[in-house]
Amino acid sequence: MTTSVETWARQVRAGDIRAVSRAVTAIENRAPGAEELLQRLFPHTGQAYRIGVTGAPGTGKSTLVDRLAAHYRKAHQTIGVIAVDPSSPFTGGAILGDRIRMQGHASDAGIFIRSMATRGSLGGLADATSDVALLLDAAGKTYVLVETVGVGQAEIEIVRLADCTLVVLIPGMGDDVQNLKAGLMEIADIFVLNKCDREGADRFEEQLRAMLSIVPERDGWRPPIVRTVASESQGIGELAAEIARFRAHTATSADRRGQKIEYWKRRLVDMLELRLLERVLPGQQGEARLGALASEIADRKKDPYAAVNELLSDAGLREAK
Amino acid sequence: MTTSVETWARQVRAGDIRAVSRAVTAIENRAPGAEELLQRLFPHTGQAYRIGVTGAPGTGKSTLVDRLAAHYRKAHQTIGVIAVDPSSPFTGGAILGDRIRMQGHASDAGIFIRSMATRGSLGGLADATSDVALLLDAAGKTYVLVETVGVGQAEIEIVRLADCTLVVLIPGMGDDVQNLKAGLMEIADIFVLNKCDREGADRFEEQLRAMLSIVPERDGWRPPIVRTVASESQGIGELAAEIARFRAHTATSADRRGQKIEYWKRRLVDMLELRLLERVLPGQQGEARLGALASEIADRKKDPYAAVNELLSDAGLREAK
Repeated sequence: MTTSVETWARQVRAGDIRAVSRAVTAIENRAPGAEELLQRLFPHTGQAYRIGVTGAPGTGKSTLVDRLAAHYRKAHQTIGVIAVDPSSPFTGGAILGDRIRMQGHASDAGIFIRSMATRGSLGGLADATSDVALLLDAAGKTYVLVETVGVGQAEIEIVRLADCTLVVLIPGMGDDVQNLKAGLMEIADIFVLNKCDREGADRFEEQLRAMLSIVPERDGWRPPIVRTVASESQGIGELAAEIARFRAHTATSADRRGQKIEYWKRRLVDMLELRLLERVLPGQQGEARLGALASEIADRKKDPYAAVNELLSDAGLREAK
Repeated sequence: MTTSVETWARQVRAGDIRAVSRAVTAIENRAPGAEELLQRLFPHTGQAYRIGVTGAPGTGKSTLVDRLAAHYRKAHQTIGVIAVDPSSPFTGGAILGDRIRMQGHASDAGIFIRSMATRGSLGGLADATSDVALLLDAAGKTYVLVETVGVGQAEIEIVRLADCTLVVLIPGMGDDVQNLKAGLMEIADIFVLNKCDREGADRFEEQLRAMLSIVPERDGWRPPIVRTVASESQGIGELAAEIARFRAHTATSADRRGQKIEYWKRRLVDMLELRLLERVLPGQQGEARLGALASEIADRKKDPYAAVNELLSDAGLREAK
């Protein structure tokens, strides 16, 4: 068993696509062996540059990620792409999507694309995404692109792992302000104004620039706006240049180590919480029980303290007083 | 011991200020007896209307809350005020502040004001605030006002318990857009434009109104903007009228019960996580240990999976495989 995980880890580190693919599935299913594999791989991580890409549906994120990946491939970099959809409960469609997306890079072993979707259970998607990002890092990818659909709290949680976060906007969604809600201003290192051949692009850029000019800088960085037409591969080189400029900027930032430590503190707490919650409220049964208890509490038929003690007792975790 | 908690609960329900005060302290310190007390009180909760008040420092939230409380007192309603400062690690200053604030209502037993601040430990402030809100509810307060300093994620977490959330803005902070970041648009049921006798109030209101007009309605409600000068008690009656209008609107909303159940699901998970985390990483020692482990992980001297297993083992919570 130990030998087999050892071999598996060696294959992953060599970039073997089948071994990496099997590892992603094991991480998603929280299968036995996944953790041991990740433990073996962890010392070899920390080399990949992680780029988060977020934005509302319809902004052309997938195309942008594909073209950015193709740009890096031309420079002989290896790429991992994780496409995360927190709103989708099934992976079926996503897997089909992977196949279609992979066709453009069919014979290219230097690029690995995988979609991940939530399973409707408690948390876990951000955890799995972090683990897959580490896996691709250990597999020697120079860039790991994490793309999330949507702009809510779950997506922000997911891009937190990124070294550089791109927020993708498009002009003419009829709702300029809406695109900037939900803390997007706070997480963006670079704004990408995609589909900028559309009407209203100049006005939109002007508004965004005016907005950015009054927001305080973070660590001496003011997020630039890069105009792209991803479907025509326009502006991709400029985007890569801005990413490189941001990377150079943060490499010398004094906050860098502190941020990494903060990230790992948060991750450790998330991992602990997930491990413990899975024990108290396992799977779909756990989810159903949580709903039933919440409903009794809302009706004042049960108190929340009794509910928590009940859950802890049943899981054998009630502390002796 | 049981009799004593029974008496305590009876005193709280009668609105005895000393008993309520002692209970807040017990909740803050997670003292023995607090949970038993809350369990006894819980069936008597669900009557108070909870109003969350949030906004950037300097917007005059405390004055606004004081005047709104005074308005309700005139109508013979009883009031509980919880002032939460997630950024302050000490309660000393806050307690002094309470004494000053209480002076305006010195001889009035119908109003109870208490400040809460974080203790620098993992989470817990949102939990304690929820518990104190339940306590004041059980103590028969008709309105519980929860005021938070600041506009970050922690504050949003805290006002989540509110039935109605006021977001307080002021004109002329030199930085209009900044005031609306961090998901404030999403949590506001009512916008309060305080200090509206200042220059630029009209322009600010116009901008805000333009912004609101393009944001989709939530459950058929578009957040109104109420202009106030809290220090002069101007606009307070109108604000109370808008709160009443929102209350009437949501009382008939089909989503209401679903929202309450969602709230309790979330609260149960939070309570579970807090209970379990406190066992794995207790107090300041736990915080220090978390920081040390995160630092080792950032340096790749330890892997995060080993760190989690180590923490769970030491707490006697490692699952037998």
